Amino acid sequence: MDLLNNYLIYLIPVFGLVGILVMAVKSAWVTKQPTGDESMNQLAGYIADGAMAFLRAEWKILSYFVVVAGLLLAYSGTTVATSSPVIAISFLIGAFLSAFAGYLGMRIATKSNVRTTQAAKTSLAQALKVSFTGGTVMGLGVAGLAIIGLGSLFIVFYTMYVKNVAGANVNGEDMAKALDVLAGFSLGAESIALFARVGGGIYTKAADVGADLVGKVEAGIPEDDVRNPATIADNVGDNVGDVAGMGADLFGSYVATMLATMVLGREIVSHDNFGGIAPVLLPMVIAGLGLIFSIVGASLVKIKNETDSVQNALNIGNWASILLTAVATYFLVQWMLPNDSFHMVRDEDANGAIKAGSLVFTKNGVFGSIVVGLVVGTLMSIITEYYTAMGKRPVMSIIRQSATGHATNIIGGLAVGMESTVLPILVLAAGIYGSYFFAGLYGVAIAAAGMMATTAMQLAIDAFGPIADNAGGIAEMSRLPEEVRGRTDNLDAVGNTTAATGKGFAIASAALTSLALFAAFVGVAGIEHIDIYKANVLAGLFVGGMIPFIFSALCISAVGRAAMAMVEEVRRQFREIPGIMEYKARPEYEKCVEISTKASIREMIAPGLIALLTPIIIGFAFGPEVLGGLLAGVTVSGVLMGIFQSNAGGAWDNAKKSFEKGVEINGEIYYKKSEPHKASVTGDTVGDPFKDTSGPSMNILIKLMSIVSLVIAPHLNHADNSSKFIQKQEKVQSMNVHSIQVEKKA
Amino acid sequence: MDLLNNYLIYLIPVFGLVGILVMAVKSAWVTKQPTGDESMNQLAGYIADGAMAFLRAEWKILSYFVVVAGLLLAYSGTTVATSSPVIAISFLIGAFLSAFAGYLGMRIATKSNVRTTQAAKTSLAQALKVSFTGGTVMGLGVAGLAIIGLGSLFIVFYTMYVKNVAGANVNGEDMAKALDVLAGFSLGAESIALFARVGGGIYTKAADVGADLVGKVEAGIPEDDVRNPATIADNVGDNVGDVAGMGADLFGSYVATMLATMVLGREIVSHDNFGGIAPVLLPMVIAGLGLIFSIVGASLVKIKNETDSVQNALNIGNWASILLTAVATYFLVQWMLPNDSFHMVRDEDANGAIKAGSLVFTKNGVFGSIVVGLVVGTLMSIITEYYTAMGKRPVMSIIRQSATGHATNIIGGLAVGMESTVLPILVLAAGIYGSYFFAGLYGVAIAAAGMMATTAMQLAIDAFGPIADNAGGIAEMSRLPEEVRGRTDNLDAVGNTTAATGKGFAIASAALTSLALFAAFVGVAGIEHIDIYKANVLAGLFVGGMIPFIFSALCISAVGRAAMAMVEEVRRQFREIPGIMEYKARPEYEKCVEISTKASIREMIAPGLIALLTPIIIGFAFGPEVLGGLLAGVTVSGVLMGIFQSNAGGAWDNAKKSFEKGVEINGEIYYKKSEPHKASVTGDTVGDPFKDTSGPSMNILIKLMSIVSLVIAPHLNHADNSSKFIQKQEKVQSMNVHSIQVEKKA
Repeated sequence: MDLLNNYLIYLIPVFGLVGILVMAVKSAWVTKQPTGDESMNQLAGYIADGAMAFLRAEWKILSYFVVVAGLLLAYSGTTVATSSPVIAISFLIGAFLSAFAGYLGMRIATKSNVRTTQAAKTSLAQALKVSFTGGTVMGLGVAGLAIIGLGSLFIVFYTMYVKNVAGANVNGEDMAKALDVLAGFSLGAESIALFARVGGGIYTKAADVGADLVGKVEAGIPEDDVRNPATIADNVGDNVGDVAGMGADLFGSYVATMLATMVLGREIVSHDNFGGIAPVLLPMVIAGLGLIFSIVGASLVKIKNETDSVQNALNIGNWASILLTAVATYFLVQWMLPNDSFHMVRDEDANGAIKAGSLVFTKNGVFGSIVVGLVVGTLMSIITEYYTAMGKRPVMSIIRQSATGHATNIIGGLAVGMESTVLPILVLAAGIYGSYFFAGLYGVAIAAAGMMATTAMQLAIDAFGPIADNAGGIAEMSRLPEEVRGRTDNLDAVGNTTAATGKGFAIASAALTSLALFAAFVGVAGIEHIDIYKANVLAGLFVGGMIPFIFSALCISAVGRAAMAMVEEVRRQFREIPGIMEYKARPEYEKCVEISTKASIREMIAPGLIALLTPIIIGFAFGPEVLGGLLAGVTVSGVLMGIFQSNAGGAWDNAKKSFEKGVEINGEIYYKKSEPHKASVTGDTVGDPFKDTSGPSMNILIKLMSIVSLVIAPHLNHADNSSKFIQKQEKVQSMNVHSIQVEKKA
Repeated sequence: MDLLNNYLIYLIPVFGLVGILVMAVKSAWVTKQPTGDESMNQLAGYIADGAMAFLRAEWKILSYFVVVAGLLLAYSGTTVATSSPVIAISFLIGAFLSAFAGYLGMRIATKSNVRTTQAAKTSLAQALKVSFTGGTVMGLGVAGLAIIGLGSLFIVFYTMYVKNVAGANVNGEDMAKALDVLAGFSLGAESIALFARVGGGIYTKAADVGADLVGKVEAGIPEDDVRNPATIADNVGDNVGDVAGMGADLFGSYVATMLATMVLGREIVSHDNFGGIAPVLLPMVIAGLGLIFSIVGASLVKIKNETDSVQNALNIGNWASILLTAVATYFLVQWMLPNDSFHMVRDEDANGAIKAGSLVFTKNGVFGSIVVGLVVGTLMSIITEYYTAMGKRPVMSIIRQSATGHATNIIGGLAVGMESTVLPILVLAAGIYGSYFFAGLYGVAIAAAGMMATTAMQLAIDAFGPIADNAGGIAEMSRLPEEVRGRTDNLDAVGNTTAATGKGFAIASAALTSLALFAAFVGVAGIEHIDIYKANVLAGLFVGGMIPFIFSALCISAVGRAAMAMVEEVRRQFREIPGIMEYKARPEYEKCVEISTKASIREMIAPGLIALLTPIIIGFAFGPEVLGGLLAGVTVSGVLMGIFQSNAGGAWDNAKKSFEKGVEINGEIYYKKSEPHKASVTGDTVGDPFKDTSGPSMNILIKLMSIVSLVIAPHLNHADNSSKFIQKQEKVQSMNVHSIQVEKKA
């Protein structure tokens, strides 16, 4: 047992390695599956090529960014004692692994799609097996790389700055330095995630909206018709947006959650058998266990007959992984954490006594917080499903309002989206209150870590959706029999639900992660309060609240612009290339792919820079407390805008889908092509950028801004005393407002 | 001079009386104007009757609310020493005057509309004179009643609790009690304002959307066509929403701003010639001067020729009143405030010395804050105009995106609305920073007071718009010559611009007022910080941020539901009453009026209760600091949602209007009835509830929640120590988290 105690830290990357090995086996199995006829392979090839073309273009731009940011980080690392130029290396590895995780996911997705189509010729069970195994490969790849990366780097930095330093203090500056350098890893991962999510989101929706507007509406050809020049771009979009973008997003969340918990764990006084760093190690070990139980859960996802419920199969796997992880975590906490109670270092006075009003908690409290995190994640998924599922009150209300036209459909969807913020916010507020109640700020962070533990499984379920969607697209484009398309449609419908619940989960985890990072930031910046009663902090709160609005505006107007360019290109091809409509001429798919690629790369830069630069500017110009106000504003407004946009988009989508089977409005049944259906298509098109571009980007926006703040926090401390800008400000102030320092009369 | 010093307090209501006298003269002049032919009078009669029917129905419901709330207030006034049951009387007077101000405005508006139509037969100059005089009557009525009410009550309570009490302390509990009781006046005014704004907003847009959906889209008859059964309801809506609703809104803002400044002024240590209460009196005197200069400004609004610019005439009057007030305020501040510097009472220690780090400011600082307020108000108006004006980039972008359909028009408008939050928030943040910089929290409040000083003029300009709109409606319904309609259209177009800038001004004033109330709340509640680093305060911030979303959702879905009921009624009348389309049968206008009235009264209750009850529940359950977090969340999110929705709606409206003269998209000119125009109509219809129901309601929501908090603040202080709920909570907490109180080791 002592041996295990001493070497636990080295075990962490091993969890990740196990994940990667299982991934390799599953990936080989997918590759071995039959790929169907030549037409299918040709289409799949176009999609894979288009996706790689996008990634290459994206990587090229991002490589410049990464080099510049790395150099800046290296320089900044030299300016304070609690950091080091090594942070740049950490940043580069994070950026690389995040991009690599996206690449892995996309490669397996573009392999699985055509193989799923082929499998759908045989049975639903086989089609599910192929598509879900594809998803699992992605989930394991992302989680495995994250744990290996973070775990290994922690070993390195812990050894460098703490273990090999004589008299190092695990609760003090030495460990702070190790974690500050490690934060570079998270910063790298989250920066790439932002660009991937925003770029991918713009790509996929520009192609989707553009393809629909001309194809479905003007030319009257169905979705995924091979004659539509934008159809390949649309299918590429599913991969670069929903797969690569989401992979990078969850990679970032996963890493950020662990990191924030570690930073807060560093400050906990813990008399444990792990050299006092059990609270620091705990989130990584929980993630490792979650990865293992995700493998177990994934192996349970299977059906036998055509009529078996795919959703049930996914639910069984998901619940198995969550419950197993919860039980294992209970024993883990009992083993790793001491029986003594904990408190934060900063709650001690100079003599080591606990200050009045300090928060003290126990290992059972820590487990309580983890349970709170699991409950919050589950409730958020259920609420999201309610607001976006077919047949439920919210979607039905949009359907009814489609009867009176486009405008009332839009009003209905916007109202549903706004209303859908209520329960998630109450759950989240209760979650914050509850996890804090059990274990203070560390509790808030570890709740997020508990929620994120089964990321591999969540991602497997999430990634299965776009694979099935693509498989359906290939079936349609290859004009395969109705039966095949029926099976892929079945999978796709389940995929739509999992996409919605996945978004609920993602926003909840991002919110808790951001709060954990926020708490970590306050600690590192060395401030006591973030007092919104101060005018400048309140001004920061306002500016922060505005950021998600401008970010969303940039995202959705980018989609609008790119979609219009796409519409014009498709119209041009229909006009200038004779024979497309008669299947005699091949459309120039690559032209459309190029438009989406260029537009998305160009348009992702402005929102990305806003997210990265705002905290830096505000932090250095106005100090850490105003920056804290800014972060709070961004987080609250970002969570609200994320939920609003994702749910409105999801509800509009399913309101439209409901017309496929026919819906009853005031006693009459309406189907596709009816006037109410046309109104519902408008809602769906408006919802597209909401739910797949700006909505999910909110997650990364709030996390990234928190991480940037955390990374610059040690410098702000410094800046407060010496920055020339601040001195100048004070001088101006003294003209009118004198900060009089009067000693208390004795 | 000494005499003036002693009696200044009694002079304040005199300013209000002057306003009311001038109002009476102008009102008599309007009444004397010719009213046109019988058909016009009949239509005007329908509108006036419908408007009164709504007011009566609204007052009936509100009288129950006022009685219940008054009794609760009277009871609560007995429970703490710093309040009194008299607060209930103060509340009743506030509620009554607010309703009365709305009634006065509506009566003059329904008189002026038909007289403006008649005047438009003569000349544009005469039409402007009649409609703007109508607006002036409303502006002077609202401002006059507010000053008389607040000023007189202050005299009464100041005499009761301070002047006639031996040894009373003007900076202490005695004055606090007078102002607490006075806060009931503001609470009464703002509660009525909320219901009037929300009810009126639902009414006007249900009628407007319902009338448009069947009339314009299905039956193909123009707006304001006498054959449309909903057309009278639509015109009634302009009066109950845009006139009575807005009147009550600005009455509430005006009173709340003065009150918040007085509460903060009470705590300022001022060695002046007014018994130490110059900072308390200042906002009321500024308002009085603003009223006088509004009368001067209004007298400058006139044109001579048909081709003169109406906008210019309004601008001249507006600027004259603002600049004259600014100059007069400079001298006022010099005269009223002492040469000593100020600081807050709470910045003194037990020995009367100023504590370290306290903020000290001068009378020039106070004037600086007032200038900041004027600049913020002006900039907000200019920015709002840019984002909603025809021919500017934002509206042009929506027009272009109408070419690719309904969906891209909606995406374009949403993007414009979100983007339009950036500059106003930066201006507001700078305004908070600047006014605080000059004179601390009192500066923030007095900035709002400076901005609101010329409310009478602002309201005159605002109310002129719906009067002109109605005049145009009567001209259309009476089928008057093209020339007459041309003149009313000219006035209406200017009215649309002033409506947009008025909204920018209203949101800016509401934001600053709320912040002032927020600061006053913190002082009265006796808390030191609102620290969002505390988990429960942060949870409050999240819940607060969500309130504007659910509030908006309720408002816009109420409009959607009521509009659908209206659509069905109009369809029924067209079906069941033969001869409507041939002008042979009169539609049953009163049925449509009834639908709008019932729907709006029913639907205003839920949002109203949310606004009133949330602060009470949160305050008593979780204490004042969490309530502070809630208020900050509501204010930030409410300001953002208000700007977003108002500007998106305004931009959609003008994008649609641009098609009337024809717009060029990609080299082609499109007019009304073209496909892009139809898409623009969709945007306009979505924007209607945004800009006239939920958007402007945000102003009142944030103010009302702050006032409720301010009124309950003295009780919360108390609750923190004795509430059973809190005690129970602490007991539960002690199971897991021990708040250990350890004395510092000596």
